[in-house]
Amino acid sequence: MSIPTSYRRVVLVRRPPGEPVESDFRVEEVPMPEPKHGQVLVKVAYLSLDPYQRGRMREAAGYAANVALGEVMTGGVVGEVVKSLHPTFKVGDIVEESLGWQEYAIGGGPRMRKVDSSLAPISTANGVLGMPGMTAYFGLLECGEPKPGETIVVSAASGAVGQLVGQIGKLMGCRVIGIAGGAKKCAFVKNELGFDACLDYKAEKDLDKALLAVCPKGIDVYFDNVGGEISDAVLRNINFFGRVALCGSISQYNASSPPMGPRLLGTFVGKRVTLRGFIVFDFVERYPTAMRQMGEWIKAGKIKYREDIVEGIDKAPRAFIGMLRGENFGKMLVKM
Amino acid sequence: MSIPTSYRRVVLVRRPPGEPVESDFRVEEVPMPEPKHGQVLVKVAYLSLDPYQRGRMREAAGYAANVALGEVMTGGVVGEVVKSLHPTFKVGDIVEESLGWQEYAIGGGPRMRKVDSSLAPISTANGVLGMPGMTAYFGLLECGEPKPGETIVVSAASGAVGQLVGQIGKLMGCRVIGIAGGAKKCAFVKNELGFDACLDYKAEKDLDKALLAVCPKGIDVYFDNVGGEISDAVLRNINFFGRVALCGSISQYNASSPPMGPRLLGTFVGKRVTLRGFIVFDFVERYPTAMRQMGEWIKAGKIKYREDIVEGIDKAPRAFIGMLRGENFGKMLVKM
Repeated sequence: MSIPTSYRRVVLVRRPPGEPVESDFRVEEVPMPEPKHGQVLVKVAYLSLDPYQRGRMREAAGYAANVALGEVMTGGVVGEVVKSLHPTFKVGDIVEESLGWQEYAIGGGPRMRKVDSSLAPISTANGVLGMPGMTAYFGLLECGEPKPGETIVVSAASGAVGQLVGQIGKLMGCRVIGIAGGAKKCAFVKNELGFDACLDYKAEKDLDKALLAVCPKGIDVYFDNVGGEISDAVLRNINFFGRVALCGSISQYNASSPPMGPRLLGTFVGKRVTLRGFIVFDFVERYPTAMRQMGEWIKAGKIKYREDIVEGIDKAPRAFIGMLRGENFGKMLVKM
Repeated sequence: MSIPTSYRRVVLVRRPPGEPVESDFRVEEVPMPEPKHGQVLVKVAYLSLDPYQRGRMREAAGYAANVALGEVMTGGVVGEVVKSLHPTFKVGDIVEESLGWQEYAIGGGPRMRKVDSSLAPISTANGVLGMPGMTAYFGLLECGEPKPGETIVVSAASGAVGQLVGQIGKLMGCRVIGIAGGAKKCAFVKNELGFDACLDYKAEKDLDKALLAVCPKGIDVYFDNVGGEISDAVLRNINFFGRVALCGSISQYNASSPPMGPRLLGTFVGKRVTLRGFIVFDFVERYPTAMRQMGEWIKAGKIKYREDIVEGIDKAPRAFIGMLRGENFGKMLVKM
């Protein structure tokens, strides 16, 4: 395979105080690096755009290091090893690792993993068989603890994680209600993914009332991807002994300081609600089991997934900004 | 013992939209009832005033039934059996049960229990060896899961529950920080109860900063009795993998709808914070073990407690209103 002498990548050049704009990023061409001992050179096939990446653009460090100004944006990729000085990975291997928004990258860190391209399209290593898949699996099963017959509500229901949460919930014997933005997404969630119902938060005038209508036995588990007013409505209607998996808060990511909302913590006392924040990496030792299970479900046609793919690394900033607005429809990917 | 032909009780006559006023209650004199088969007549010695009782004054039912207008206010009492048609409890027994704000009451329900007056003053059956004691014990140990060397923060630190939470925390080998209102309470919490520090929320201009100063390793466990701005400050500074025992929200009890506050749920994701609402009755099967442990700690002088006692049932409304304002200093009791 012929390897070019330069490649393109996206670096962060400004920390946005609110919603990011394209000029917060710069697409730049840089010389092709050479892998050192223990490293590989990866030709990226797909870049994964995920909401957590907004957090890495901040000044303050969160649970992982932020992106320094002038440095490549954080992001998971799947691609092919085109050069290898690594003892395990060889040229031609398809691998997945968090290598950033770039067309080529030096890989070979402890979290690099080989992707079995015979199982499913390799893009799924960034989705259902990757971080979003593991997030849905462990977040729902470990933090949500759903029991057959219970009602689960998941926000951002057509997104990378949400679409899987609902389908896993159905496989667990639960009633599953999605919340998504727009009639198209809701129709997909209900008709294609098999959720029992999906509420369009943009169309519903009274989300509390709409939730009560589709959750006649209340809400036992809430898988929260969005925070804000949508979550307020769900949390006001959560059942006694309800569980909340705090996965994300995309409605708040562009805020420079926490916006105001109704104080609901007090209502969780008498209802004995448990809320648990989690990060998928906490479950990393159990990924193999979960990957096997997800793979089996996919092969059996029990789990479907939808991807939203743009082409070209230069499209990444715009696609990312759109995703934070909810403009994507399915797992957001950039194909190189 | 001569039993009078009438007795006084306090009934609810109006549901306060905000802070209760004395005219929401009526002290009335009613004829002495006769116990039926399986019942006892209890002469109340102490009535327990607790923040949860504010919730029972609402129209909407919470986790327990509310008080109907014209009915006696809910409250735990300790007293002496003066008549008995009950197979187990006999005249002279000291008992504890939730019998309401009254001088005499018909008891003998499934939750009535005999109080061992040789262990400690009988008023403790409403405090350290009663519901508040069990709340502190199970809330801290089960929901807070403190580990030696960790830092615990407890709000309403000089209150019935808070004072015990901190002392149990110290017995668990933790650093314990209290938050209370006023220099007197803080001095008591630090000097008498042995907390490592106590912050006066009324005097601190910047509670976040003050917390950081006394919690150099951050906050691992928060036992929340108050909600509102005090809890905001603690929750903004909670550690990764922190645990929050949601016990009460006294700052919000007089509000007719949830006030606004900063949205903090999103910050709990990356920090993997778990928040758990609980009600002490969920642990009722394990009370005997906990009571034994608390009794041993008291006998060994390892747990101290402070009571704030007013005399006369007619003083109950005023004392209750004051407690909601934080005017009490220790476990609030009405002595008959």
